[in-house]
Amino acid sequence: MTAITNHAWTLASRPEGAFKPSDFQWTEAPVPDLADGQVLVRHVYLSLDPASRGWAGETPTYMPSIPLGSVMRGFGLGVVDASRDPALRPGDLVQGLLGWQTYAVVDGHTLGRVVRDPALPLDAYLSVVSHIGATAYFGLLEVGALAAGETLLVSGAAGAVGSLVGQIGKIMGCRVVGVAGSAEKCAWLTELGFDATINYKKEPVLSRVRRLCPNGIDVHFENVGGAILDAALAFINTRARVVLCGLISQYNEALPPPGPRFIGNVLTRRARIEGFIVTDYQRRFAEAFVPLTDWLKAGRLRYRTDMVDGLEHAPVAVNRLFDGANTGKLMVRVSDDARLP
Amino acid sequence: MTAITNHAWTLASRPEGAFKPSDFQWTEAPVPDLADGQVLVRHVYLSLDPASRGWAGETPTYMPSIPLGSVMRGFGLGVVDASRDPALRPGDLVQGLLGWQTYAVVDGHTLGRVVRDPALPLDAYLSVVSHIGATAYFGLLEVGALAAGETLLVSGAAGAVGSLVGQIGKIMGCRVVGVAGSAEKCAWLTELGFDATINYKKEPVLSRVRRLCPNGIDVHFENVGGAILDAALAFINTRARVVLCGLISQYNEALPPPGPRFIGNVLTRRARIEGFIVTDYQRRFAEAFVPLTDWLKAGRLRYRTDMVDGLEHAPVAVNRLFDGANTGKLMVRVSDDARLP
Repeated sequence: MTAITNHAWTLASRPEGAFKPSDFQWTEAPVPDLADGQVLVRHVYLSLDPASRGWAGETPTYMPSIPLGSVMRGFGLGVVDASRDPALRPGDLVQGLLGWQTYAVVDGHTLGRVVRDPALPLDAYLSVVSHIGATAYFGLLEVGALAAGETLLVSGAAGAVGSLVGQIGKIMGCRVVGVAGSAEKCAWLTELGFDATINYKKEPVLSRVRRLCPNGIDVHFENVGGAILDAALAFINTRARVVLCGLISQYNEALPPPGPRFIGNVLTRRARIEGFIVTDYQRRFAEAFVPLTDWLKAGRLRYRTDMVDGLEHAPVAVNRLFDGANTGKLMVRVSDDARLP
Repeated sequence: MTAITNHAWTLASRPEGAFKPSDFQWTEAPVPDLADGQVLVRHVYLSLDPASRGWAGETPTYMPSIPLGSVMRGFGLGVVDASRDPALRPGDLVQGLLGWQTYAVVDGHTLGRVVRDPALPLDAYLSVVSHIGATAYFGLLEVGALAAGETLLVSGAAGAVGSLVGQIGKIMGCRVVGVAGSAEKCAWLTELGFDATINYKKEPVLSRVRRLCPNGIDVHFENVGGAILDAALAFINTRARVVLCGLISQYNEALPPPGPRFIGNVLTRRARIEGFIVTDYQRRFAEAFVPLTDWLKAGRLRYRTDMVDGLEHAPVAVNRLFDGANTGKLMVRVSDDARLP
């Protein structure tokens, strides 16, 4: 193997509030030799996800907290350059925890091999046919158990996951109401086929939810938390399901804010609030990828990629997730996406 | 049929905060003739339950709100005096929504016939082998899906439901921690076999839960809400189940207080908060009554009845549920419990 240099962002300090550039350190080191079972992956697209804020904190969540000094954790899409895993060959396209770095040396069994449909652009394999699409699919259909004709409320609706959730809701024959943070985002949701939208920065959420969900809410898909979750609980129906997928409004807070007042409705309406982490479904991703691919090809599912060029911008770009700047899937082009097998 | 006079408490006004005697009116009227399918029941024990506060409010919950001027709703145990329902005969012991009155004329099919085990005292058929025991049984085992060896936290643990929940948890081979509001209540829970107790009026709940549940909480059975629910969520394990059975701390509040801060743990730990109303299980009560009866007879399940003598005291006595005065099952002796078939 020729000597390759890896560039990586390591975690230099635990963030307080939003990520600051000084929380990361830019490092350079030769790529180590591969051990048995390992593969070398050239990173093409790095996914920037809200979960990264939790991983960088001191408290372990569903994954251990990232040790200070080690490479920042992140999902990504890459190409196998060298392999000592018999299941993967150079040129294979893979998804997995590649980290905030240009090259990753990882155990092959932790990666998912991507079988690319030539009709789809490469970024679809991070924006939709990926952990993002799997989150929307399993969260909405398994945890949320959405049924045709129901009313679905989605928060963070213009985000990577939320925009897919709403469209899958429409494919399922449901009334879909999306909550987002700007008129532009809401206009995009309308283009995507959402029945109604709420701009939570301009409109009173509680009264808008009441008006736009006249038959109550059967499934609420929560990406945000806070006042939006509370408004949803105020109007849930009997046997409603609340899928807790994200609480991005509070990831930067040291002490979580007080929770929803209307939890009493969960009792009287025998509703269910359930937490959901997509990595629990890793072995079943293919189940979601088949319909997601079909829907993309049929034009029934649309997406936006918010592409940042160059890994060096990741520490600043990641905050687009938290300050409302981002629409669709935020990712970083780490290396040449035209140079593919 | 001889002319019988019925005495009843009707709802005179919607309570603000706690029930006041002036919210009720004492009425007297002849018992009407029975229509086809109806039975006349002499009320023996009236159950006073926290749910009554919700039913008396203006907002419908899982049952319609009680119309002003009609008899106050309540579960009870009684004896059939006359019947035009072929399934029930004079002398039959029955449970059902008999109301705050001395005689009830109700549709026979809404009642459950009680097959009394001669080894058990009559009050067991309201304190345990009743909607109370069914609440503990189905809430803990079906909604909570408690498994042997898990850690169970119970709030309102010295109440009618909570004290049974904890004991069923011990029968299931679990570590059981109970939260109650006085040293006397906690001492009783220790007698019942609870592994540990927390007096929430004297002890810091959050740090006590941390200390007494060193392996985290697998099932939290919530009867109270507020700070206790929050402390539970702070220490739930992955895949924990929170059974929302009651939120008695907020039934007297006009605006519900802010909810739990630690709802983020529900997400990262893929936990489930689920509301539960026992009437949904009405058709399956017998499933619970068989083991409950066996456990009572074997001395594995113990209970206390907080008996109030005379229906005239119901409007004052009901507040014992909310001010912490009550331990065990609060009920009213409406008529002679020695005069039975």
